[in-house]
Amino acid sequence: MAPSTTPLTVLPTVAGPSLPMAGAEQERADAARNRRRLLDAAAALVAERGADAVTMEAVAAAAGVGKGTVFRRFGDRAGLMTALLNHTEIELQEAFLYGDAPLGPGADPVERLIAFGCARLKMVELHGEVLRAAAHGTARFSAPARAVHLTHVATLLRAARVDGDVPLLADTLLASLDAALVLHQQQVLGYEPDRLHHGWADLVRRVTRTCGD
Amino acid sequence: MAPSTTPLTVLPTVAGPSLPMAGAEQERADAARNRRRLLDAAAALVAERGADAVTMEAVAAAAGVGKGTVFRRFGDRAGLMTALLNHTEIELQEAFLYGDAPLGPGADPVERLIAFGCARLKMVELHGEVLRAAAHGTARFSAPARAVHLTHVATLLRAARVDGDVPLLADTLLASLDAALVLHQQQVLGYEPDRLHHGWADLVRRVTRTCGD
Repeated sequence: MAPSTTPLTVLPTVAGPSLPMAGAEQERADAARNRRRLLDAAAALVAERGADAVTMEAVAAAAGVGKGTVFRRFGDRAGLMTALLNHTEIELQEAFLYGDAPLGPGADPVERLIAFGCARLKMVELHGEVLRAAAHGTARFSAPARAVHLTHVATLLRAARVDGDVPLLADTLLASLDAALVLHQQQVLGYEPDRLHHGWADLVRRVTRTCGD
Repeated sequence: MAPSTTPLTVLPTVAGPSLPMAGAEQERADAARNRRRLLDAAAALVAERGADAVTMEAVAAAAGVGKGTVFRRFGDRAGLMTALLNHTEIELQEAFLYGDAPLGPGADPVERLIAFGCARLKMVELHGEVLRAAAHGTARFSAPARAVHLTHVATLLRAARVDGDVPLLADTLLASLDAALVLHQQQVLGYEPDRLHHGWADLVRRVTRTCGD
């Protein structure tokens, strides 16, 4: 899969052609690979030690490059966090569009829907503060990433033969995965991640079940 | 029911004692009655002509008082809108706690839950912009009014014999009535009020239905 710098938007549905490269193209590929390596290091830092641990210095050290490289690439910590968010969002989209079942194709649509919500909750657990900060005002509902998630959820609901107003139901399901809500549930109400994952699975089963089948 | 100036919080569970009043008490009662009359006029204006039509002048004219009275009472238009929101919220709470069925006590809990969501959607239709502005940041989920709604929804879910994680399910149901989400659905997605009301009723039936009863 070609590395992408698209900001929080839908993935290209086909990977670029794999032609021989030379000169400038080779250089761009190297740059993209290095960028990805830095973001993987940043993501690993978040997973291990939380978002606060992600400093320009820590990412440089973890990726084994000089600090200047990280600053040249991302400008500042805010730029790094935004790039990390895009990177994480793209990884989530890759996983639910092309990855392994049950998140990816092949599994029962209800199981895929449960896996999708759990993957999204996991993303909020790791990057919730950044997600919440990025999704302020109207951006909260109009972000391209939300549109992709909405389409995915609606597609799975239809595949699960849910009748009724599927787009509206998909909107409601996504509302329960909203970063600000999930952070409130974790930080203010003290709900553990497990509880939220079970709650999502329960919600999906309730809205998709049909009686008398 | 005694007029209340409590800001967006739970109603007192009993009305104050109805003792004979004289002097200062009578004056306070008159002031409260006048305040309520101004807010009723403002609420009627919103219902007839939308929130933008609510100016200090229009409220004064509708209530048949001088403009100075409205300014003395509410300070400015923002003060008036906040007071109006509290007034509307308190009316909603009165209605679902003590009012007529199906919103108030006496109806089937599932029907009460449907009526509650529709009343809340109606409130967002009328006062959405003010609600959204009031519910920014952490206030969005921690507002006392939301806690009251949460308790009400959880109580009805239990009365409907819903098993599982009722507080979390109540949180999810309320998320779909969030002012910012509903405004997005109306203004950006172009969903009509009827569609949202039906969607809510459908959601409530899905989450509360039990198969094999």
